[in-house]
Amino acid sequence: MGVSCAKMMKDKILQQSIALFEKNGFSETSIQDIVNMLGVTKGTFYYYFTSKEQLLMQIHLQYIDNILEQQRRIIDHSDKSWKEKLFDVVYMLIHQIESHGASARIFFRELINVKGDFLNEILAKRDQFRFNFQYLIEQGIANGEFRDDLPADMMTFAVLGACNWSYMWFKPEGPVPDNEVACIFVEVFLNGMKK
Amino acid sequence: MGVSCAKMMKDKILQQSIALFEKNGFSETSIQDIVNMLGVTKGTFYYYFTSKEQLLMQIHLQYIDNILEQQRRIIDHSDKSWKEKLFDVVYMLIHQIESHGASARIFFRELINVKGDFLNEILAKRDQFRFNFQYLIEQGIANGEFRDDLPADMMTFAVLGACNWSYMWFKPEGPVPDNEVACIFVEVFLNGMKK
Repeated sequence: MGVSCAKMMKDKILQQSIALFEKNGFSETSIQDIVNMLGVTKGTFYYYFTSKEQLLMQIHLQYIDNILEQQRRIIDHSDKSWKEKLFDVVYMLIHQIESHGASARIFFRELINVKGDFLNEILAKRDQFRFNFQYLIEQGIANGEFRDDLPADMMTFAVLGACNWSYMWFKPEGPVPDNEVACIFVEVFLNGMKK
Repeated sequence: MGVSCAKMMKDKILQQSIALFEKNGFSETSIQDIVNMLGVTKGTFYYYFTSKEQLLMQIHLQYIDNILEQQRRIIDHSDKSWKEKLFDVVYMLIHQIESHGASARIFFRELINVKGDFLNEILAKRDQFRFNFQYLIEQGIANGEFRDDLPADMMTFAVLGACNWSYMWFKPEGPVPDNEVACIFVEVFLNGMKK
């Protein structure tokens, strides 16, 4: 099997698993269910993954590595203000619901099924995403763009919480586009709802 | 068995199940696991619940009915401003993490295991909580307390999302008390983070 074919089959298994885990849950989905949907054998599955748990770990890692990389690029962008970077991270999180929403929902729901070293690696990366977010806000405070009378960690929890929760309700095919949601959210975070 | 004894045993089963579901997951927890921890028989379990699914439904209903009732009382409070009511609902949600956090985390994670009419009843009540929240914000807009240039439904998603997400990170025994988190959150939502 060539390298690109192998990658294609691995991606197919990942995509099919994400769809089944989201619809039926990780515990309720068997490896047999996954290979049946793809019309391949269990041997093919075990060529790419050692277990269903390791496959779930891969889904989690793909999701978190992807948003960490995008976040890093936004924060490193030298020409932008911290307010613009705040918008860019919020928009990135909501925008990628369309392509990665199912992965994220599985990530939030099925973390209980990841154990030991796998779990520690995932949790460390999840924390890293939050710390980077907090760094962005701290830099904005240091730079005089954000107020300095509220703790940066709590502001981070507020903003990140609203964004993470959008994975539970935002519909990419719905009436309000992702950039409009991001605009409204950032307007609330920066300027508040008070008249 | 007297009424109060029956209620006590039912509550014990509920509390034990919440602890096991949170720690090990709904699918991984058997009725046998639950009765073993309580030192009772399966017969006792089936005296109170028809199935593990119906027990999960009871946990969800207790959780959502409780916050709906508290929310209703806050909104109906005639002497308070809508800003104060916003604080009260945010505080209520964070405050009750200590007593109901496990129920809420199970609620968010295990909803996939609730089906049919049960699911519709739960989803209708969850929507009701959000609609009531939006009503609070709409009344604040109509009353001139909140700005009228942002859609109330999106402001609701932002505030409610941050509160719901706090169930994933807030530790009642941690260094920042619940009322301080609520104060900071409401300060961000009302006045914004911009300097």
